[in-house]
Amino acid sequence: MTDETIAGSADATLSSRELERLRAELDRVDAELRDRLAERIACCVKIAQVKREYGVPMMQPHRIGIVQERAAGFADRNGIDRDFMRRFYDLIIAETCRVEDLVIGAAGGSE
Amino acid sequence: MTDETIAGSADATLSSRELERLRAELDRVDAELRDRLAERIACCVKIAQVKREYGVPMMQPHRIGIVQERAAGFADRNGIDRDFMRRFYDLIIAETCRVEDLVIGAAGGSE
Repeated sequence: MTDETIAGSADATLSSRELERLRAELDRVDAELRDRLAERIACCVKIAQVKREYGVPMMQPHRIGIVQERAAGFADRNGIDRDFMRRFYDLIIAETCRVEDLVIGAAGGSE
Repeated sequence: MTDETIAGSADATLSSRELERLRAELDRVDAELRDRLAERIACCVKIAQVKREYGVPMMQPHRIGIVQERAAGFADRNGIDRDFMRRFYDLIIAETCRVEDLVIGAAGGSE
């Protein structure tokens, strides 16, 4: 082995170890992200149950506006792409509306 | 006021209070969800920096498979719609690939 190949192999070991460490960190963050997502959906189910019980109208469009505005502000402060953040919450809100519909038992849309 | 309208108004107060409490809970969960999302992106930036430094190939498709499989398993265990979960991670993975590309400075795709 030349000095160069030894150095190269040391580099490869170093980068593998570093990547392994970062991927373990990513897996931990992902587990928490999934837990929060499940918690969010569970919270919306509870909201839907209260709405059903008391006959409160299903959707409050101004709440969606608040959630999206907060998300946009957060994106700006944290260097996250605004469009991605909007699509991220569009997806989550659409799913929670769908789940709320199921809980409330409405066959109609969630406008 | 009749007994009925008094009862109706008490119900309305109760449901408003309960919804307010649940929405405050939702806002807290959302704040944590956003923090974890930002942490996930930051972690992927660090991974991209290591890859750039050591010349490691940009994408590891088997990692995407692992992330999606874990997400699917989590969805099944927690009564979350599998298709929603897949789209949730498709969106996040596409964004982190885009950000990784920017960090590594590759003009090409992220296949």
